[in-house]
Order: sequence, then C-alpha cells, then structure tokens
Amino acid sequence: MKIWGKNAVAELIKTDKTVDKILVVNGLRDEQSRDLIKQAKARGYKVQFAEKAVLDKECGSSKHQGFIAYTSDFKYTEFEDLLSSVASKENAFLVVADGIEDPHNLGSIIRVCECAGVDGLVIGKHRSAQVTDSVMRISEGSANHLKISRVVNLNNAVEKIKDSGLWTYALELGGQNLYKQDLKGKICLVIGGEDTGVNKLTQKKCDGVLTIPLSGKVNSLNASVALGVGVFEAVRQRSL
Amino acid sequence: MKIWGKNAVAELIKTDKTVDKILVVNGLRDEQSRDLIKQAKARGYKVQFAEKAVLDKECGSSKHQGFIAYTSDFKYTEFEDLLSSVASKENAFLVVADGIEDPHNLGSIIRVCECAGVDGLVIGKHRSAQVTDSVMRISEGSANHLKISRVVNLNNAVEKIKDSGLWTYALELGGQNLYKQDLKGKICLVIGGEDTGVNKLTQKKCDGVLTIPLSGKVNSLNASVALGVGVFEAVRQRSL
Repeated sequence: MKIWGKNAVAELIKTDKTVDKILVVNGLRDEQSRDLIKQAKARGYKVQFAEKAVLDKECGSSKHQGFIAYTSDFKYTEFEDLLSSVASKENAFLVVADGIEDPHNLGSIIRVCECAGVDGLVIGKHRSAQVTDSVMRISEGSANHLKISRVVNLNNAVEKIKDSGLWTYALELGGQNLYKQDLKGKICLVIGGEDTGVNKLTQKKCDGVLTIPLSGKVNSLNASVALGVGVFEAVRQRSL
Repeated sequence: MKIWGKNAVAELIKTDKTVDKILVVNGLRDEQSRDLIKQAKARGYKVQFAEKAVLDKECGSSKHQGFIAYTSDFKYTEFEDLLSSVASKENAFLVVADGIEDPHNLGSIIRVCECAGVDGLVIGKHRSAQVTDSVMRISEGSANHLKISRVVNLNNAVEKIKDSGLWTYALELGGQNLYKQDLKGKICLVIGGEDTGVNKLTQKKCDGVLTIPLSGKVNSLNASVALGVGVFEAVRQRSL
C-alpha cells in the first residue's frame, strides 16, 4: 500500500506500522520536508530519493507533495477484539458506519472519529468503501490511529455492541432531538450512507434514533458532517 | 449553467431561478422521476426528453440520474445587501469562508449553512472556489436557498460585519474552547481553508478564536465538518 502527501506520511511514521521505504523527491529544501526526512531516518526507515517524474508515476498524479511511503496493507481490528477493548471502559464510545460507499466520506468519517477520541469504528465488509490508499490519504493518516473493524452483518454487530452495555443510537431524520439525549457513559452512534441513511432494520435494533434539528429547505447534511455534529455533541456533554 | 442529479434539479425548481429547460432521459418510470417531471411542468418549465447518450454527453459522465436543468448563472447577493438584510435581525448569523479552494468543501459548507438556517455566507473573489455547476451539485442544490456574497477583501468584510453588531469568531486551533463561548444573539463564524486555516490577520480582526476540543493524534478536522460542529453548537445554544 502506498501513502502519499506530507501530512499522511508524517502521521504514518508516528505509528508502529511496517514501513517498507519512503520515496522522496530530490532537492526538497523546506523545513517541513527536512524535518520529515529526519524523523523517518530517526525511526530507522529506508529513505530513497528520486526524480519528481518517478513519484508522479508511482502516485498516478502529482499530488504526492514529494513523499510516498510504502507500507503493508491496512490492519483491521477483529470485531471481537474491539468489543473486548471497550468492555470495561466506562466512557466507551463506538461508531458504526452503515453503507458509506464514497471514499471521501469514509476518510472524513475516520478523521472525525480519530479527532474526537472515539474508541473504534465498525464498517460493513460489503456495500461499503474499505480503507484503501485513497481513504487513508483523505483521512490525513488518521486511519492509522483508529481501531477499525469490518463485519459481514452490521445488525448482528449492533446487537453485540448493545449486549456489551453501550447505548446505541442511529443518527437519522425523524427521531428525537439530538440535543435532548444524554450522551454520557457507554455509547455507540450509527451513521448511514448519503442516499440510503441508516437501514430501517438497523434503526430498529438501536436503542433510539437521534436527529440534528435542521431549519433549511434541503434537509440532509453530508454523512461525515452529520457524524461530526453528533460525535462532538457527545464530546461536549462528556466534558461538562 | 447546467445542474444535474435528481435532488439538485428538484431543489432548483423550488426556487425562483430562471430555468431555461430541463432535459430528461426517455422512459423513466419510477415515482420520484415522474413526480419531478410533473412538478417541473406545473412550474411552467420546458421539459425535453432525450436518449441517455445525449445526457451523458451534456454532463460529461453518467452521473445525471436522468435529469439536467439549464439555468442562468448563480446570482450572488451583494455584500451590502446581505449586511442590510441582517441589520435589524436579533439572531443574525453569518459565516465567512476564508480560502476554501476545494469545490467539495465549499459545496459541503454551503449545505451546512443552509441546513442550519444561517442568514448568509461570505466568500472571497480570489483564492476561493466559486459557486460553479459542480459546487451547486455537491451542495445538493442548497446554494439556491442561501444568500452568498463575494468580496475582494475578507478582512474589510469582517470589519463591516463587526460594525453591524455581530460578534465575530474564527474557528481555528489554539483559541478558547468552543463550548465555553456564548453563541446566542448576533454572531458570525469564520472558517479557513484545509491547509492554511484562517489567515492570521483575519483572526486578529475577529472578536475571538474558538477551538473545537480534539483528543486524537491528527489534530484537524475537515473544514466543512469543523464548520458543522461550530454552527450546530450555535443552533443548540439558540434553541435552549
């Protein structure tokens, strides 16, 4: 798997992922680039220099900002391991993403979860974008710092999450006002895809449906924005 | 200007924009499509049918979902008119977007503003994405329901917004906790571009800098997500 872009490579080398090598454009003199090269070398990674044309070809465009890292494929966390890791956590916070097919949205959702300190994200193995190179890049490398599990059946996953003691809410139109719900303690938020929203059956499995109060004429937010609003309302309540 | 996609066309025909004609793929039988055609005709618009290949060519891809509307160019609101429209409004709420170059982000920001009932959005004429066909589409047509002004100098605009009595805050790292700020009354939030954030000089012009408390290792959210979190925190406080 290739990761490109300065920020994504900088985030990658902070993790304990296996980095095979880092390819860098010849002659970068700016401070950020020099720092990044120094850090990569300090971590013991092989840093190899090449002409811009080589990186353009490897990346398929010139969006690499001078850095491409070669790493082993993204390692998903086993769902059972994710559940165990939050089992005894008083403030356990999981997110389930149901049918997010757009890599931009999945990348942005991962970024929201990581920035908010969510314990883990569960996605479907089917009808969902996976953590590919481009999702990793869109997430600005934050996928490296978040436990992400894949499951075949999201409804079963929601059942198990509830059995683990997490209050589980779908973020969807037509439910109760998000701001009237207590989001302290062990919780899980379920977000759906752009067009489909959260599957009806999945909604029924949840303990409730929470709705962001909208006042415009176009009544739906982008999935990652809606998740951001929901997740950070939980963050706010938990900080009180 | 061409608008395509069922939702975007449906939103367009609810407005008082000039629609020259609507091109529809032959033989659509689903309820949503039939409704949309009926509504367009009821509004007096010319509806013209064609083969899918014609629409594919017009749109440059097959993403039109069977509908392309031809409309006059997006009409920006004069900045002075925007200021007048909120001058006597007790709950005036404006957003300034500083250097959002990515059309996806601008479209998503417009969608956030419209969904939250923000009174208007101010963008720069330079170093900023403009409301093009693709931004309109990404906004799911919500740009048609939001007053959007373009200004040459954002710092001057911020000064004038403050002179109009709006408390103006930059959403940026390194400021005070967003959740500790009173966001009732007349306010304006300023958001910056992905890489650059809010310009330092613009930040200084603002009454304060507000920060979303982040707890991950990658400490920045996507611009539209950050704006969503900020804007809906204001919505929450205003509903108390």
